[in-house]
Amino acid sequence: MPSSPITEPTVGDIRAAADRIRGAVPQTPLLTSPALDERLGGRILIKPECLQRTGSFKIRGAYNFISQLDPAARRAGIVAYSSGNHAQGVAAAAALLNTDATIVMPADAPAIKLANTKSYGASVITYDRYSENREEIAAGFARERGAVLVPPYDHPWTIAGQGTAGLELMSQAKAIGAELDAVLICCGGGGLTAGMAIAIKAARPETEIYAVEPAGFDDTIRSLATGERCRVKPGQTSVCDALLGPIPGELTFPINQRLLAGGVTVTDDQALAAMAYAFSTLKLVVEPGGAVALAAVLSTRFDCLGKTVAIVLSGGNVDPSLLCATLTGASAP
Amino acid sequence: MPSSPITEPTVGDIRAAADRIRGAVPQTPLLTSPALDERLGGRILIKPECLQRTGSFKIRGAYNFISQLDPAARRAGIVAYSSGNHAQGVAAAAALLNTDATIVMPADAPAIKLANTKSYGASVITYDRYSENREEIAAGFARERGAVLVPPYDHPWTIAGQGTAGLELMSQAKAIGAELDAVLICCGGGGLTAGMAIAIKAARPETEIYAVEPAGFDDTIRSLATGERCRVKPGQTSVCDALLGPIPGELTFPINQRLLAGGVTVTDDQALAAMAYAFSTLKLVVEPGGAVALAAVLSTRFDCLGKTVAIVLSGGNVDPSLLCATLTGASAP
Repeated sequence: MPSSPITEPTVGDIRAAADRIRGAVPQTPLLTSPALDERLGGRILIKPECLQRTGSFKIRGAYNFISQLDPAARRAGIVAYSSGNHAQGVAAAAALLNTDATIVMPADAPAIKLANTKSYGASVITYDRYSENREEIAAGFARERGAVLVPPYDHPWTIAGQGTAGLELMSQAKAIGAELDAVLICCGGGGLTAGMAIAIKAARPETEIYAVEPAGFDDTIRSLATGERCRVKPGQTSVCDALLGPIPGELTFPINQRLLAGGVTVTDDQALAAMAYAFSTLKLVVEPGGAVALAAVLSTRFDCLGKTVAIVLSGGNVDPSLLCATLTGASAP
Repeated sequence: MPSSPITEPTVGDIRAAADRIRGAVPQTPLLTSPALDERLGGRILIKPECLQRTGSFKIRGAYNFISQLDPAARRAGIVAYSSGNHAQGVAAAAALLNTDATIVMPADAPAIKLANTKSYGASVITYDRYSENREEIAAGFARERGAVLVPPYDHPWTIAGQGTAGLELMSQAKAIGAELDAVLICCGGGGLTAGMAIAIKAARPETEIYAVEPAGFDDTIRSLATGERCRVKPGQTSVCDALLGPIPGELTFPINQRLLAGGVTVTDDQALAAMAYAFSTLKLVVEPGGAVALAAVLSTRFDCLGKTVAIVLSGGNVDPSLLCATLTGASAP
């Protein structure tokens, strides 16, 4: 394992990550939609991480992490566990850095995520989401092969990599003269939220940052309320497969606790409606978990009236069958 | 009718158009896709006009046109004929400029295009694409009501407006140090192609520009070959509903004849495959006609090996039923 100290990354670490990933990880644009602005009565800036290489922001952290491993560690290969977007980010980053990657994925992950992960050259080990422990499987594999585990969110290198999306956002907002009142970020384990929050607050301390979570998986929001890391209650399900982490990270939560103004939950129906809106009006392909920040503003769970608000669309790896069922009003497969 | 002289617009006219539309018509980004670059062995820059307000580039020309009408003309209202994207562009621009709009559309236009046009507040008159003449219907309405016809491509104001996409492209390419070997542009009546060509050639004369047309609707390509405006042969059909114009424009063709290096045709299957690729890999919603330039490079009808090539995705107003049938391998509705 890399011997980095487990401490919170600084905005300096995020800037170093931005230098490290440049060339391999493209910047995503900052988009506007007059139709969305008119509907919500605010100025909405869209950070479409669905357009990122591998279809989500995850390659930012994965590339920043793997590129800091020493040559011996890279030769030993890396391992990761993920429902799909981290899997693809790690697989693609490992391929770019000539490192063997093995990814532990739930057998019921979206087909597109399984197929894409393999297409980047990674080996995939599937497990049963309900009866097996992915951390244990990955840790066992890491021990056995001497492979380094690439943490999906709870590591300063991962967080710093995801934070580059926040640096870009603030620089792009500044370039168009937008002063952000709020930023809404899709939140699973909290790595993207924490990384972006550090970058956003460094640039503009008065900008309020909100985590957006699916109903039932509002572990970060409940943790913010209670001041302690709360676990997702057993038996929950959500269509937002990218956001089903069981508990906020040990490292991400204190960052989010310090920097976030609060959180917003959205229902599956609201996430699916936002995915359909992104398709029909924004012309962007967004997966349900990637659409929750959009769902928060469209549903007015978060009120944008008179405000300048940035929303992150964190990923676009949706199976066509789910999107098409949603668009045509059929029941989801 | 506006009394502008029917002469070719200059790059100065396009710069004036860019000033005129600023604020109402957002810039679209310039995107890159490492996956696409790797597949084609070149550096591909994507100008996604599907992300433009109204889902296509058409509002650029429509807004530039209507905003130059004098107050009396604007009060009399405007009329346009269009299979759908110009309809939406004109309807939205007219609404922004407080002008009544009536749009003549084929009864079998994609449902999304009919619905969106009405949603911008325009009145829609439908006609039978195979037995009625849309120019005559629109001209009759214009005479009767004193309304100004907003030409879909064959007017210097329209062409100058579409050309603003070319100004943006060249400025964005320059900002990332990309020297374009070629630009591929979806071509119907030739307004986008002509306008962009003027802007591109003014910025970099050595960049080669190619019109991309659907098989059977290669009227511009055949006209370039013969040196005379050729008409589409009777009985042709194509899924690229945005690109079914019968003959190159009187004004657009001489511009394209002077500035284009050539043209590429793609089949319907290639256009649909490109639409599916845009969905699954680029995470962009593109309509078949908007995907023909992408189809030209994906099919290697245009070889990108070792080149820096920009492709325009001209629109994203596709009916979900068609996209979903394509994605799931079902036959198109």
